[in-house]
Amino acid sequence: MDSKEQFLKKSIEAKEIFIPHLSADPVIFGFDQNELKVLLLKMNYRKQWFLPGGYVRKDEDLDDAVMRILKDRAGVTEVYLEQFAVFGKKNRSEFYFEDFDETLFHKQRFVTIGFYALYNPDRFNLIRDEFSESCEWIYLSELPNIELAMDHREIIEKALLTLREKISHKPIGFNLLPEKFTLSELQKLYEVILGKELNRGNFYRKIKNLGILKKLDERRTGGAHKAPDLYSFDEDNYAKALENGLSNW
Amino acid sequence: MDSKEQFLKKSIEAKEIFIPHLSADPVIFGFDQNELKVLLLKMNYRKQWFLPGGYVRKDEDLDDAVMRILKDRAGVTEVYLEQFAVFGKKNRSEFYFEDFDETLFHKQRFVTIGFYALYNPDRFNLIRDEFSESCEWIYLSELPNIELAMDHREIIEKALLTLREKISHKPIGFNLLPEKFTLSELQKLYEVILGKELNRGNFYRKIKNLGILKKLDERRTGGAHKAPDLYSFDEDNYAKALENGLSNW
Repeated sequence: MDSKEQFLKKSIEAKEIFIPHLSADPVIFGFDQNELKVLLLKMNYRKQWFLPGGYVRKDEDLDDAVMRILKDRAGVTEVYLEQFAVFGKKNRSEFYFEDFDETLFHKQRFVTIGFYALYNPDRFNLIRDEFSESCEWIYLSELPNIELAMDHREIIEKALLTLREKISHKPIGFNLLPEKFTLSELQKLYEVILGKELNRGNFYRKIKNLGILKKLDERRTGGAHKAPDLYSFDEDNYAKALENGLSNW
Repeated sequence: MDSKEQFLKKSIEAKEIFIPHLSADPVIFGFDQNELKVLLLKMNYRKQWFLPGGYVRKDEDLDDAVMRILKDRAGVTEVYLEQFAVFGKKNRSEFYFEDFDETLFHKQRFVTIGFYALYNPDRFNLIRDEFSESCEWIYLSELPNIELAMDHREIIEKALLTLREKISHKPIGFNLLPEKFTLSELQKLYEVILGKELNRGNFYRKIKNLGILKKLDERRTGGAHKAPDLYSFDEDNYAKALENGLSNW
């Protein structure tokens, strides 16, 4: 069965089980080699990259839908996703699936709900679905070189802006870093999210003042430099800071 | 024509022009008498209060839809609304319209997109629509005493939380306050949004440090106390601070 037949077959089923006009697109960010990356699928039908999105069942809460979609499409489980924006332009999905007529479920207008999450990519064992020829982490620096479908580039950029805004007033990093990390690794994470270099002294002072770090009785060894201290997050204080925010008031 | 007949008639038209399963609900906050209030409609069909929400046309961008809805339902024009959350529980609108069968457009499952905005209530001349017996600003302190439909109480609470989070890292108030205001009025606005009292000295120092205020060559006269200085927002600096946020980094 080629990918066109596959869509026609799935379309009949989709009309039965999914709400029309509504989709969910998860943007999963990972941090690796001092860079951010994002989880994408390359579709069989036309070789473009997509977020691992999908549709909402008629009898399913939206929040459950996005978790099921991520599991179905990429094998990713046990993630906590947060809504960040809705993409509702009338023609955002209009020009896709030109090989099909309007009866195809996948071809209608979709308003999509964007969700995002931050995770350490090592955690996941990716499994691609039947519509995709691959399921991969792509570095953000590689995005200009690949073809992204529809408005998925805009969705990723908006997720990144949300993350940038969020890091200015909430602690972030718990899910992105390994359990033990150096202050320099944490600084690098903040720098790639904020898109700017930070002054080392200021950063160390501010991050320590938050009271969310535990200094461990260990050092990172093996580097060329003096072995740096290792830290982990203080889970209770981290959760409190996440709850209350780092208010200016 | 009673309200039941009215719904049946509208339902036929609605199926033609609107996307099924999708709605938009604007939460418009105003500030008056040192309190926040919210714009609500009281529906003819059953005497409950609603946000002035509605549906998205098949040929309409979501952002245009919410502005049209607000104009149609409350006569409110020229507002800038921001998305804040999607409410997608499968049964959130299920138990409404019990007097009708499932063919009524209004009775299906709706995933609703929440938008919010902050405005000085004096700006608007409210005009209720044909479904409503009134269209009013209701003080937040009055909400526990009125009957709100479906999950509209939860939507308002979530909008307020969003506003609270936002005020911790962006300047807010430009649209809520009169053109000229005292620091004490601005502090009161921050206090009602944050839901806590602020130290006067700290607040004055921090707000002045943001560089978003212009001290005017005028004082508020007529009060019992020493006439306080009047301020207005410095529009350019305010816009910059809104754009860049008050980052901790």
